[in-house]
Amino acid sequence: MISRDTHDRMANAIRFLAMDAVEKANSGHPGLPMGAADVATVLFTRYLKFDPKAPHWADRDRFILSAGHGSMLLYALLYLTGYEDMTIEDIKGFRQLHSKTAGHPEYGYADGIETTTGPLGQGIANSVGFAFAERKLREEFGADLQDHYTYVIAGDGCLMEGISQEAISLAGHLKLNKLIVFWDDNNITIDGTVGMSDSTDQHARFRASHWNTIAVDGHDPEAIAAAIEEAHKSDKPTLIACKTTIGFGSPNKAGTHKVHGSPLGADEIAATRVALNWPSPAFEIPQDILDMWRQAGSRGASVHKEWANRHAVASKKVEFDRRFAGDLPAALAPAISAYKQKLAETKPTVATRKASEDALEVINGVVPETIGGSADLTGSNNTKTSQTASITPTDFSGRYVHYGIREHGMAAAMNGMALHGGLIPYSGGFLIFSDYCRPSIRLAALMGIRVIHVLTHDSIGLGEDGPTHQPVEQMAALRAIPNLVMFRPADATETAECWQVALESKGHPSGIALTRQNLAPARTTYSEENLSAKGAYVLHEDASAQVTIFASGSEVEIAVKARELLAAKNIAARVVSVPAFELFDAQTPEYQASVIGNAKVKVGIEAAIRQGWDRFIGTDGIFVGMKSFGESAPYKELYKFFGITPEAVVDAVSAKLA
Amino acid sequence: MISRDTHDRMANAIRFLAMDAVEKANSGHPGLPMGAADVATVLFTRYLKFDPKAPHWADRDRFILSAGHGSMLLYALLYLTGYEDMTIEDIKGFRQLHSKTAGHPEYGYADGIETTTGPLGQGIANSVGFAFAERKLREEFGADLQDHYTYVIAGDGCLMEGISQEAISLAGHLKLNKLIVFWDDNNITIDGTVGMSDSTDQHARFRASHWNTIAVDGHDPEAIAAAIEEAHKSDKPTLIACKTTIGFGSPNKAGTHKVHGSPLGADEIAATRVALNWPSPAFEIPQDILDMWRQAGSRGASVHKEWANRHAVASKKVEFDRRFAGDLPAALAPAISAYKQKLAETKPTVATRKASEDALEVINGVVPETIGGSADLTGSNNTKTSQTASITPTDFSGRYVHYGIREHGMAAAMNGMALHGGLIPYSGGFLIFSDYCRPSIRLAALMGIRVIHVLTHDSIGLGEDGPTHQPVEQMAALRAIPNLVMFRPADATETAECWQVALESKGHPSGIALTRQNLAPARTTYSEENLSAKGAYVLHEDASAQVTIFASGSEVEIAVKARELLAAKNIAARVVSVPAFELFDAQTPEYQASVIGNAKVKVGIEAAIRQGWDRFIGTDGIFVGMKSFGESAPYKELYKFFGITPEAVVDAVSAKLA
Repeated sequence: MISRDTHDRMANAIRFLAMDAVEKANSGHPGLPMGAADVATVLFTRYLKFDPKAPHWADRDRFILSAGHGSMLLYALLYLTGYEDMTIEDIKGFRQLHSKTAGHPEYGYADGIETTTGPLGQGIANSVGFAFAERKLREEFGADLQDHYTYVIAGDGCLMEGISQEAISLAGHLKLNKLIVFWDDNNITIDGTVGMSDSTDQHARFRASHWNTIAVDGHDPEAIAAAIEEAHKSDKPTLIACKTTIGFGSPNKAGTHKVHGSPLGADEIAATRVALNWPSPAFEIPQDILDMWRQAGSRGASVHKEWANRHAVASKKVEFDRRFAGDLPAALAPAISAYKQKLAETKPTVATRKASEDALEVINGVVPETIGGSADLTGSNNTKTSQTASITPTDFSGRYVHYGIREHGMAAAMNGMALHGGLIPYSGGFLIFSDYCRPSIRLAALMGIRVIHVLTHDSIGLGEDGPTHQPVEQMAALRAIPNLVMFRPADATETAECWQVALESKGHPSGIALTRQNLAPARTTYSEENLSAKGAYVLHEDASAQVTIFASGSEVEIAVKARELLAAKNIAARVVSVPAFELFDAQTPEYQASVIGNAKVKVGIEAAIRQGWDRFIGTDGIFVGMKSFGESAPYKELYKFFGITPEAVVDAVSAKLA
Repeated sequence: MISRDTHDRMANAIRFLAMDAVEKANSGHPGLPMGAADVATVLFTRYLKFDPKAPHWADRDRFILSAGHGSMLLYALLYLTGYEDMTIEDIKGFRQLHSKTAGHPEYGYADGIETTTGPLGQGIANSVGFAFAERKLREEFGADLQDHYTYVIAGDGCLMEGISQEAISLAGHLKLNKLIVFWDDNNITIDGTVGMSDSTDQHARFRASHWNTIAVDGHDPEAIAAAIEEAHKSDKPTLIACKTTIGFGSPNKAGTHKVHGSPLGADEIAATRVALNWPSPAFEIPQDILDMWRQAGSRGASVHKEWANRHAVASKKVEFDRRFAGDLPAALAPAISAYKQKLAETKPTVATRKASEDALEVINGVVPETIGGSADLTGSNNTKTSQTASITPTDFSGRYVHYGIREHGMAAAMNGMALHGGLIPYSGGFLIFSDYCRPSIRLAALMGIRVIHVLTHDSIGLGEDGPTHQPVEQMAALRAIPNLVMFRPADATETAECWQVALESKGHPSGIALTRQNLAPARTTYSEENLSAKGAYVLHEDASAQVTIFASGSEVEIAVKARELLAAKNIAARVVSVPAFELFDAQTPEYQASVIGNAKVKVGIEAAIRQGWDRFIGTDGIFVGMKSFGESAPYKELYKFFGITPEAVVDAVSAKLA
């Protein structure tokens, strides 16, 4: 039992590390760590199941600091509880180049950072994926191996962002009762008091989404403890509203927005030292308090050992370990090869969204860790296969999530699943609505995690739904995100190949852009090699070519037809299929040069804007694509109207050669 | 008084127009128009204040079909009530190329379409802006000129999207009691029943945000009417939950997701004709019913005339008309000129976010229709000036909105304000969080409306906040959106010029990317001409130049220093400042060629990815910028670490020339 006095001093250790690190960096956010220190102290000293010596323990509780600007709270906790890769020197290096202690918590920079947060609302939405993964894996592997909580600290900003509504309504619907969110209810935002911009009754709001809610004094450790214990008994996710004072302890700035995102200043820190009776100099923690913290950090070792004993003899140990290592089943590659062989025989004319479903039917049969889903477009995205029964609030034996009309919440939850480990999530949505979940896609790329977004209806080829639904700039905008690989396969074979690359890539997220409309096969012979993995490859070679036509996805068919029309005019042309810009950029210069070739005229075709295509065709190349938003009409008319046709290619090439 | 039988037949007119148009197009969404026909009939025949002969009447009630896929509901209403530019031929042309009746309602295609909807949640979020504009203009011009309602029909999808939470919490906070939302509560989404993905108690949720809520049978006209009258008396915005049957009237498909987004088929339409006792052939409305509808459409003429009489003698008539015409005060241009002259004298070294505040101080002094705001970053975005007092729920005399941490809701509300007329909204946010509101920015561009986004902290120059907050790909991704002009000014003078262009552009939205860090002035002499309006211009000319350096924003300073370093090595260089790609593309080929020039080496500098820059420097040009996400550190260290320095430019140029 930790006495109140000891608790206060332990919490103050967090406060002063935060204050002093922000002061030294002359930049950062002391307010939240100082305000939420009591909540975090109770959680980490009494409840959180973790073992700093084994930070990747699969059954640890997950702690998500959704209010990522309060990063010093997390760094202080990691240091105090004894994470070996978080030293006092790391704390002193707060916000300095190459330090582990970046301005906002960055996944991968240090153990114990479960996810990258800072963009508000993302952490709480990730946490739905963490809690989902625990629930699903508990279903699959039993409570002996998976039985943990997901705890979140969220601020007012997280709760105001729309993504939080998608997250909480999904979590409440799915009854994720091991998800516990502490709301740091300090009534302060950057502009001033919350009341300047919001008057939401958060308790009523969460209860409307079937959450349990509890209100406590966020500076009363016993009240916080009682709330956590009550939450543990709930059959619903729980919001614990913790009334706190931002910058708690600062005599002149506590409770104001001045302490949110700026150093307190030497004088105010000195005053706070007096007020909190904390004589230790900066970055020095009294040994007895550090010992207490380290003892709290070692609490989990015995529980971890018990788990390890169960794990060692578990019947599903090998599969469990494979899943958490992120390794794919050996059966995947042969299954894809066999499927590609079949495609080379059947040569289907098919929409790539349907081809994706067919590929998934193969994949889901051999990769049990895939979790499919869609933002309420299941029949349009073709993301459900025979193996993926729907998950319901009371039955997690399935493998398919009806995410609802919540693209942002979906993408963020998928990030949480991938970060948790044990699952490979893939989504379904329209390419145009990647805009709705772009912040979460970006974070997946920044973190380098394996989530796969199925993005159908990928151009004006969707037809009548019109400009609001037709992607024009989305491919360019997504290709712009570093470390995201965007695929746009041309037929069923490329679709299978792209899926294989996406699954085999542990270090980046993928998007697969797919058509609504049918496409003739671009590839008609079997290739053991995954040609799409090279990003671009020569589909039709011609040593005497005057023209090279580069195209992606549905426009490869147009390129091939244009080649035939040009041949009839005695103009020889090569065709290069470009399923993934980013993968091509990773090839050797020699390979790249061989694909680009030396034909006099270079043409790029994509039913989208030109941006990015100069990389293939140069600034003097011909680009056949879109320059504006789309129109509402049957898609074949649209291709004609916007001049994206084999004939238009022939005309432009002929003019250039004339 | 319309009898129940007449009401039913009037509503059925909508149903059959929708069914038959979808059937003819073989594409579209009959379910919502059939389900919501009763609600729309009551609203349009008894309450909506509108005059089809004067569709732009400034004091009309606004009707927003947030569930835009139900577009045939709106088109049917416009035709039936007698909008002259919506004929039965237009209805027959549903979803055909160049027809007014696009798949989703497209603003500008026909009168009576108040906003473009289809991407779910946007309409309800726009409506907050419409209702805000009415409230603000009523405050300013009095109820004689502005006193109208904003009505919305929203579906389950709109309410599941996170943006709806931002919208309703803002509307509830601001007590926008003339906003009335009909929720088409049909319990059906594309995947099946709502219960598959959601179990939110919407009444409780809306009440948590201080809305009035009412539940009615959505097929009972008197209950609907009573609810509207109750809503009119409310001091809060109102949600009227209308329990409806999707596809009402279809004997075999009503109430199922089969009728949501597909034609019913000839057999089912025939069966529906029998079930609803509607013998008229497709696209023929019985004359008595058409007459009743036209009579409903003429209801507003007398009210409009009374308004016109008040308007004719109103003391603020001239200002009111100017504001709704969207014309700027004549005082703006001279004020900007005078301010630029002052800058040429003072030559301030200043962050462009601060320069933007200074420009706004000038602008807001002479343009009373600007409505500023920020998504809780007022002090960081520098968007508040001496003229813009904060608007509060009880005091709309101010001109500044504390939008809260709601970027998406902010951008969508701004679209509503601009569409309403009478106001020019500008936002404040971080450039990185343009990702959070991208769907609304895209719609502003698609609609071609004047909203202005102030986007500060525009690169790694923000420093310690790190990769989650540092834009790397956002400029490229925003430049990719057709009809959006993205500005990135280099100093205070360019900032003022960019503001002037943004304000003077009625036909497109603008984004202004601004630095956190101080910049030396790029322009030191006065130019009467707005050089930034050309998109790119020669800042430093040199007829003998071997090198041209193109740069935007904060990197112009680096370009200028590189030029000096090169000169010391006897390498002559030109410098071109590029504040806006899109405006440069609109210049004459001659002007463009004169700016691009013929120097042997071309260099582009932007602390962002290369995508898009080949337009200036060619694929063989040198690009000095970012290839990855950023890092957390003081910004000067980051510029060095990422090699975005004058020295790096000199090294690259020297290597190229060697």
